[in-house]
Amino acid sequence: MAQTKSYWASIEADIEAHLRTAIPVRQPVAVFEPMRHLVFTAPKAKAPALCVAACELVGGDRTQAVVAASALRLVHSAAHAHEHLPLMDRPNHKPVIHHAYGPNIELLTGDGIVPFGFELLARSVGSGQNNSDRVLRVIIEITRAIGSQGTIDGQYHELHQGARCNEKWIEHVCMKKEGELHACGAACGAILGGGSEEEIEKLRKFGLYVGMMEGMLNWVGGNDEEGLMDAVDRLRVMAIKELENLSGRNVEPISSLVEVASLCNL
Amino acid sequence: MAQTKSYWASIEADIEAHLRTAIPVRQPVAVFEPMRHLVFTAPKAKAPALCVAACELVGGDRTQAVVAASALRLVHSAAHAHEHLPLMDRPNHKPVIHHAYGPNIELLTGDGIVPFGFELLARSVGSGQNNSDRVLRVIIEITRAIGSQGTIDGQYHELHQGARCNEKWIEHVCMKKEGELHACGAACGAILGGGSEEEIEKLRKFGLYVGMMEGMLNWVGGNDEEGLMDAVDRLRVMAIKELENLSGRNVEPISSLVEVASLCNL
Repeated sequence: MAQTKSYWASIEADIEAHLRTAIPVRQPVAVFEPMRHLVFTAPKAKAPALCVAACELVGGDRTQAVVAASALRLVHSAAHAHEHLPLMDRPNHKPVIHHAYGPNIELLTGDGIVPFGFELLARSVGSGQNNSDRVLRVIIEITRAIGSQGTIDGQYHELHQGARCNEKWIEHVCMKKEGELHACGAACGAILGGGSEEEIEKLRKFGLYVGMMEGMLNWVGGNDEEGLMDAVDRLRVMAIKELENLSGRNVEPISSLVEVASLCNL
Repeated sequence: MAQTKSYWASIEADIEAHLRTAIPVRQPVAVFEPMRHLVFTAPKAKAPALCVAACELVGGDRTQAVVAASALRLVHSAAHAHEHLPLMDRPNHKPVIHHAYGPNIELLTGDGIVPFGFELLARSVGSGQNNSDRVLRVIIEITRAIGSQGTIDGQYHELHQGARCNEKWIEHVCMKKEGELHACGAACGAILGGGSEEEIEKLRKFGLYVGMMEGMLNWVGGNDEEGLMDAVDRLRVMAIKELENLSGRNVEPISSLVEVASLCNL
């Protein structure tokens, strides 16, 4: 357990180090300073770390995935900033967060972070590395995860909650938000690490289930707690099943993600 | 003149046709319908058309640039939507536009349009076309033009206008907003059409000056009209100079952009 913890901690430290170098404090400071702030204070999803772990699982090197993981962290923090923008037609569905800047700066900063994530990715194609096809594929994966059929779909449904706050609705929102992002993270890591198509798809499914679990656990405490916990249990079984099929790979570190406790404590 | 007009009209028609096919009406309709609406009703910049024209100027085929032009149109319409979001801390610096949807949908739609633009680009890498390096370069160009050192910088300065609404301030805002976008459009077209590095840089500068002219003409009517028109004249001379250096190329269609009238009427 201690070993697993230090494994994830080392991944997070590597992503953090990469981002600190990648996001410079440069002119205009009034634009870049909030970018650093929003990226480093947003709650962390496990999707970026999962990207690195999936890369290593299929035999890749950590350095092959750290840029994609950083890009995932960037787009996730942008989504978080926009999700909490105080807009006139938003019901108070979100916990009030501390806003270090006004809505205007947080809107612009989010708008600046997303292209920056894609810039990092596109620039990560190394001369002689011959990885441009993989990087292009990862760009497509991330655009889809954060786009109108991914995060945006989830955010849309979350905002139009109405009376539909039942287990099925929660499952859909969590699939589109946390699910797609983690699925994308795992798939990107496997792509960059040189995994087979079968491995990529298995890890994608694993990520989907883990992300959904992470999302759904945030909803526990409402009316339908028992139904929700049953759904989380089903997802855990499905996630473990995907790993079982990855024969010959060391699935131990990654499998720790399906333990509920580890979702909160790692 | 009629020929020039029909040249630009044919480019706009090709971009429009590509976008109509690219933006499907699919589930969730409540997310995709606003996307179509915002893209097709936003005011058109000349940057996408300039991308196609620059590609043809350096000897490329129109089909090589139409996806990048569409992506430019997408990101520009997203910026337009976010620029007009009614946020609590925004001074009334912008003309009130008709909002077909609430702020919330317009925020989400803008957030969905940008990754979609990059998805289109990344997907445009054809098998056997061997254009992945060019497409990656174009992705970097666009991320920079719309990011924290491009559009976002301009929007930031525009919002923090204060007492600084003088010619120099207007020039900076227009350089970062319209200037960088048009510079990017022209450079991307030249990259995709196989232009030399020299041609790419000359067309980039040409686009920068044309975009700044377009932006600055929107500010005419304020206090410093004479100074502004002088600056536009200087930019026109500089733009024409860049084209003079493109020896052996048919610069006629593209040179029409530096006529003030054509900026408004094409």
